[in-house]
Amino acid sequence: MDPSARKSRLYSVSLVTTSVNASRLHSRIAALARFGALPGGGVTRSCWSPPYEAARAWLLDEIRSAGLHGWVDLAGNVFGGLGAAAFSAATPVVLTGSHIDTVPEGGILDGALGVLAGLECLQAIRAAGAAPRRPLVVSAWSDEEGRYASLFGSRAFCGRLDAAATATMTAVDGERLVDAMARAGFDAHRAPEARAPDGAVHAYVELHIEQGPRLDEAGVPIAVVDSIVGVRRTRLIFHGQADHAGTTPMERRRDAFLAAAEYALKARELVVERGGGGSVTNIGVVQVHPGASNIVPGRAEIVHEMRSPDAETLERLARECEALATDVVDRRGIRFDAVRMSQTTPVACSPKVRAAVEAACKRLGLGWKTLYSAAGHDAQNLALIADAGMLFIPSRGGKSHRVDETSDAEAIERGASVLLHTLLTLAG
Amino acid sequence: MDPSARKSRLYSVSLVTTSVNASRLHSRIAALARFGALPGGGVTRSCWSPPYEAARAWLLDEIRSAGLHGWVDLAGNVFGGLGAAAFSAATPVVLTGSHIDTVPEGGILDGALGVLAGLECLQAIRAAGAAPRRPLVVSAWSDEEGRYASLFGSRAFCGRLDAAATATMTAVDGERLVDAMARAGFDAHRAPEARAPDGAVHAYVELHIEQGPRLDEAGVPIAVVDSIVGVRRTRLIFHGQADHAGTTPMERRRDAFLAAAEYALKARELVVERGGGGSVTNIGVVQVHPGASNIVPGRAEIVHEMRSPDAETLERLARECEALATDVVDRRGIRFDAVRMSQTTPVACSPKVRAAVEAACKRLGLGWKTLYSAAGHDAQNLALIADAGMLFIPSRGGKSHRVDETSDAEAIERGASVLLHTLLTLAG
Repeated sequence: MDPSARKSRLYSVSLVTTSVNASRLHSRIAALARFGALPGGGVTRSCWSPPYEAARAWLLDEIRSAGLHGWVDLAGNVFGGLGAAAFSAATPVVLTGSHIDTVPEGGILDGALGVLAGLECLQAIRAAGAAPRRPLVVSAWSDEEGRYASLFGSRAFCGRLDAAATATMTAVDGERLVDAMARAGFDAHRAPEARAPDGAVHAYVELHIEQGPRLDEAGVPIAVVDSIVGVRRTRLIFHGQADHAGTTPMERRRDAFLAAAEYALKARELVVERGGGGSVTNIGVVQVHPGASNIVPGRAEIVHEMRSPDAETLERLARECEALATDVVDRRGIRFDAVRMSQTTPVACSPKVRAAVEAACKRLGLGWKTLYSAAGHDAQNLALIADAGMLFIPSRGGKSHRVDETSDAEAIERGASVLLHTLLTLAG
Repeated sequence: MDPSARKSRLYSVSLVTTSVNASRLHSRIAALARFGALPGGGVTRSCWSPPYEAARAWLLDEIRSAGLHGWVDLAGNVFGGLGAAAFSAATPVVLTGSHIDTVPEGGILDGALGVLAGLECLQAIRAAGAAPRRPLVVSAWSDEEGRYASLFGSRAFCGRLDAAATATMTAVDGERLVDAMARAGFDAHRAPEARAPDGAVHAYVELHIEQGPRLDEAGVPIAVVDSIVGVRRTRLIFHGQADHAGTTPMERRRDAFLAAAEYALKARELVVERGGGGSVTNIGVVQVHPGASNIVPGRAEIVHEMRSPDAETLERLARECEALATDVVDRRGIRFDAVRMSQTTPVACSPKVRAAVEAACKRLGLGWKTLYSAAGHDAQNLALIADAGMLFIPSRGGKSHRVDETSDAEAIERGASVLLHTLLTLAG
């Protein structure tokens, strides 16, 4: 038997015998959920925070205990390699992963599932003695949720971060990224050095909870993702005039909060009516200054987020919202500033990765549905440098970014199994 | 000459010879403005804060240097007495004063003027050797602006504070009054003991800036205040549902902020249309939870303030706003809680004090105008236990509760002179 035939036989065997250890996966999910756990359930684990740093240390331990090579890059991304201890163009890897940071008062699966299922897959492949052609790496990307900057770690890895930008990245409460990273022992200015060499990634596949109700309501176990929405975040600062809230005649007030309130209501209407069905919008950050009951608000700041699977629609909505803000402030005799915080363009997933996920579903006898992702994900950065794709499992009740976010245990196991077979296919 | 005739002659002499020292008053205003001064002008000096406590110490020094008896009661109120070192029914005093706390980013005259002009009047009366029949006291009332509880010091002094209430008083940022007072060396639970004995105050008169545009625009130097508006503050908590801001379909979102925004716009309309002209409203405190750009707001808290010179109108508006909130949340499938934070009823000023202010204006050849106060003041508590009234000087441009609040130097001097003659009349 020549060597390549022998390899091919081994591979076929591994497809049959390799399977994920569901109880190990569930206990790791429960273990990670303890970092930043909230009394009533759910978790707050912002990137670079003390609970996050403790979770990172725990993850590295798990990676190493699983027999993988563990390392952390200059953007804080954590990696676990099977047959790889670094990235190089000479040996392109098949990469899987997600993130272990969370939104404030978020759930225990958003991000964590993709990282821990990826780790489980690599551990299972190693244990089964399967020898795929390409090395495999599992990743946990820094600050996917964007306390300081959305998809930070994967942006750095994919070469979309410049050193100047890191200096100005700031959380909504004013904390600077450079300070948060320094506290965790990292130098933000060096984060761009985390860029992977060209050609170092053969393919990327990310398992995630859907975070919406489409799979759950359709009763379908897996979604093959065909595209990921673009997300645009703009900070709008309405500048009115602080005044005494008793003595200033009503008609003379230039109330910054009322302008923000009017904009919020009308921007929602505009996006719903003119967004073509797939566009959504949110205002989740609101700050009113100086913030006293007896002072007319002199300044109101909001963060306006819009998402659309269609790049042109997103651009048009952004222009229309800016015109709306102008109209609101002009009528109210005030002014506003708009500061673009972040912007991603919608991306298409790789046909090769989609085909691998579909093949895995077929092999496991699981139905699937093709969906676009209404949330941003690290995969959209990886799609800029490699074949990249995603699969979703159902979120019970479509709930996410809230403490009661959950998925059924069986759904998690099915997702991990599909990921395993997808990785084996991609790794060859 | 019998003693009373001699006293009467001295008094007449004092009326002619006693006058305020304008430069001393202006330099004290400038000195007090340094405590909590902001780089661009104006001041942030919340009650019990370190700059406030430093200002209190400075004021006590000034009182004692002016030859008055200085003391502080259990509610943190500061007093300077001429012929009085405490309050007793046996020797009712004529009281004047205001407050030295400010709103965040407030001006240097709101409150400070009344305290420092009162101090100047007592110092001038003492220096002139005038011997009014009744003792005189100048006061600086604690937390008039209500970081923890509006008109706190004068409420305690007038017996309108119970010990149970102090335990729950909390600033909008969550700081408890008991902790803030403890830091400053006071026991909040003992504040109700600051209550003055019945009959201890013969009359109270407070000089203040108008804080609105009416005097400035009419070109009239003095307002004699006939009534003070009631102020009602309610904390409204809108309970929606936190959800993922990308994946949750727009029509399923239960966005607490949008409910608060709709309420804010409609409550303003309601008060303007149905408030009978004299009513005003403000929403100056807005907090959105959990406060992330990619999470639909699950909770929004606002402080809704309404003011009216008419008690019945204020009650009716409060009921109508509650019905409005119910309507807003019902349509949006969410719910709300309303927590009454504070409520004062409109009060009428004493005819005796009004007459004394008018007589002082006549004596000094100054025109006046009768106005109601659109702001709440400590005088409204004093009106519950004694003859109480107020006079205003113009605020340039009607600006107040903002860093560029100001009044002309001559307007300040005129106000202090009218206060001096009013005090001499009331003290007999």
